[in-house]
Amino acid sequence: MITREDCVRLDAADPLAALRDAFVLPPGVYLDGNSLGARPKAAAARAAAVVEREWGQDLIASWNTAGWWELPVRLGDRLAPLIGGGPGSTVVTDTTSANLFKALAAALALQASADPRRTVVVSERDNFPTDLYISHGLTELLGRGHELRLVDSPEELAAALDDTTAVVTLSHVNYRTGALWDLAAVTAQVHAAGALVVWDLAHSAGALPIGLTAADADFAVGCTYKYLNGGPGSPAFLWVNPRHVESSRQPLTGWWGHARPFAMEDVYEPAPGVARFLGGTQPVVSLALVECGLDVALRADLEEVRAKSLALGDLFLDLVEERCGGELTLVTPREHERRGSHLTFAHPEAYAVVQALIARGVVGDFREPDCLRLGLTPLYLRHVDVYDAVEILADVLATRAWDDDRYKVRSAVT
Amino acid sequence: MITREDCVRLDAADPLAALRDAFVLPPGVYLDGNSLGARPKAAAARAAAVVEREWGQDLIASWNTAGWWELPVRLGDRLAPLIGGGPGSTVVTDTTSANLFKALAAALALQASADPRRTVVVSERDNFPTDLYISHGLTELLGRGHELRLVDSPEELAAALDDTTAVVTLSHVNYRTGALWDLAAVTAQVHAAGALVVWDLAHSAGALPIGLTAADADFAVGCTYKYLNGGPGSPAFLWVNPRHVESSRQPLTGWWGHARPFAMEDVYEPAPGVARFLGGTQPVVSLALVECGLDVALRADLEEVRAKSLALGDLFLDLVEERCGGELTLVTPREHERRGSHLTFAHPEAYAVVQALIARGVVGDFREPDCLRLGLTPLYLRHVDVYDAVEILADVLATRAWDDDRYKVRSAVT
Repeated sequence: MITREDCVRLDAADPLAALRDAFVLPPGVYLDGNSLGARPKAAAARAAAVVEREWGQDLIASWNTAGWWELPVRLGDRLAPLIGGGPGSTVVTDTTSANLFKALAAALALQASADPRRTVVVSERDNFPTDLYISHGLTELLGRGHELRLVDSPEELAAALDDTTAVVTLSHVNYRTGALWDLAAVTAQVHAAGALVVWDLAHSAGALPIGLTAADADFAVGCTYKYLNGGPGSPAFLWVNPRHVESSRQPLTGWWGHARPFAMEDVYEPAPGVARFLGGTQPVVSLALVECGLDVALRADLEEVRAKSLALGDLFLDLVEERCGGELTLVTPREHERRGSHLTFAHPEAYAVVQALIARGVVGDFREPDCLRLGLTPLYLRHVDVYDAVEILADVLATRAWDDDRYKVRSAVT
Repeated sequence: MITREDCVRLDAADPLAALRDAFVLPPGVYLDGNSLGARPKAAAARAAAVVEREWGQDLIASWNTAGWWELPVRLGDRLAPLIGGGPGSTVVTDTTSANLFKALAAALALQASADPRRTVVVSERDNFPTDLYISHGLTELLGRGHELRLVDSPEELAAALDDTTAVVTLSHVNYRTGALWDLAAVTAQVHAAGALVVWDLAHSAGALPIGLTAADADFAVGCTYKYLNGGPGSPAFLWVNPRHVESSRQPLTGWWGHARPFAMEDVYEPAPGVARFLGGTQPVVSLALVECGLDVALRADLEEVRAKSLALGDLFLDLVEERCGGELTLVTPREHERRGSHLTFAHPEAYAVVQALIARGVVGDFREPDCLRLGLTPLYLRHVDVYDAVEILADVLATRAWDDDRYKVRSAVT
């Protein structure tokens, strides 16, 4: 049997332990950092500085003096090492949805000029729904034979790749199951078929090392408010392989992406480099707060982050096997090489189980149809937190504490 | 001669005078609220509440308890009266650029089903460049005969309207010249030609009454960080005429615009109503601050705002005529019915004049090629501010204070 003392010892030996102090954490155990990351302590002072000094006192001077104009590119450069990108490859801007639209449009345009028969976008049916909606919305808008094809397995993906395939878009870690694609292998497989790949790193950026450059991937997008702790709905990122940048065009051509934005020319000319993926004026307050999360993430060694993430996951699974009497069905692959940084269990009353856990201070979330989803965030979660969470989970299941009408009423946002 | 005492008397009689106290203002005279509105005092506490309580303490619970999910629609409903829209017609989301893309795409799709020959987007060459870039980017993406045609005058606009015209898109107030289009008359003219109109209200929303519903306009977009004082780069708005909403489709189909966003379905179905114009997860901190600006704007009668805006403008022009010895050439139309809420003067050394003014506490901005642009924001500007600003302007011109190398070095952001 694993004891709490075992966990205390593991925490004492944890090379990332000190980073927990950089965050404000709620009482209990927060297992939803894969949905909304905890607040870095520094974010409060940064928000006050942006609102009170940069906006309130300095007003438009802050475009220069506070570096507002440079934020998307500067934050992109800071974020890039976390996803295996180099300088000048990444911008922080807009939403993940909008960035996926831009990256897909750019990838399709590259294919249209190289081989006009390649008009098919391939994705997996279990991808995050927005990714499918955006892909479908774009193919419908383009017409001209463009279509979205969905596959249900790696085998179907392999079979779907042919000389009509333009782009494959996949989430590196599945939002629901936590399953991890082999980014390098799939990228190579897609390239071998003559197609390009657009990765969505929403559920992997900040949680594990990602080698975009090493894998020679084409485009990637992702969000900063999960494992990167940028704040609620904080602007997303977009990465472009430098070999594509200068030939890439995207259709959301706002002035921030222009070669000479202040010349106010009436014809669009894309900026050199990845800045051409910028468009409209960005929400500066939310954007500036992204840096507080990056400051903490950049203090960690990503190999250590990954090792701790897997260790916390293994601990969670071992404890569940010891204590939860087979009531939960593991949805996430158990093998390290196929697992992201959250664990998902199926339970027929998953929604009520989640609510009962939240009432006891263990915050996870529910995902359709029957999934209990628990995020393991190595920057601020301890082994004892996992221990305490499973104790409560085991109790909720053993006592059927979830079987209470209060816990079965769905909130507007689940 | 107009005296400062005259201005003090005008301020004493100003029905909007009390609203000034709702803002934090820099020392000197801020004449750039048409670029970035001043900070409402309430925004500091609101930012702290969102960052420290809603994010830091309550984390994902805030999607329900703090109403994050509802913000784009709820703020849209609060903003709607300021642009003459009804409930359920407006969302606050994304950037003006992205919203223009969505509105244009929706308008073109409506036309494509009604009359496929209508594939031309008409705009004016002197429109805000992003509007042209977005329009051009979209027509290029669509192909299928779509194109952007630019006109240089109301006469050319009238001549350009024919049975190939799908959409006309114009800025209600020109960003550079301050010239105001007659929204109702142009809407009627465009409709008579069988086309739809998309208005960009960036430089008019919050500065004058706008009768979108009364004019039966089709779509409108605009920004909240100018006269609406929402904060730097705060999310933009999009308005749709209710008669178009249920038949409108837009291509940035993210999960916030889905009919059942938490069902995680793999096929997109647009939400009923204007929420279908939402896409990705929004930057909550920046979005929440929009409300502080709306709270102040909604305390004012827009007819009084317009009357004061014109009075401040007339005062400025009269004082310039009295004191600036013909050195400045008025670019903005003098007639009330053709003027927005900022004044633009041409001067061969406009850039240096702006810098010399800023050094003396009078903040305006420069626009290519030779324009000095001065915004008149009725919610927080007094008649004495205009008086003091023109005193300093007259002195800068009379003493050639602008003729100083320090003032001729261009900043990165102008």
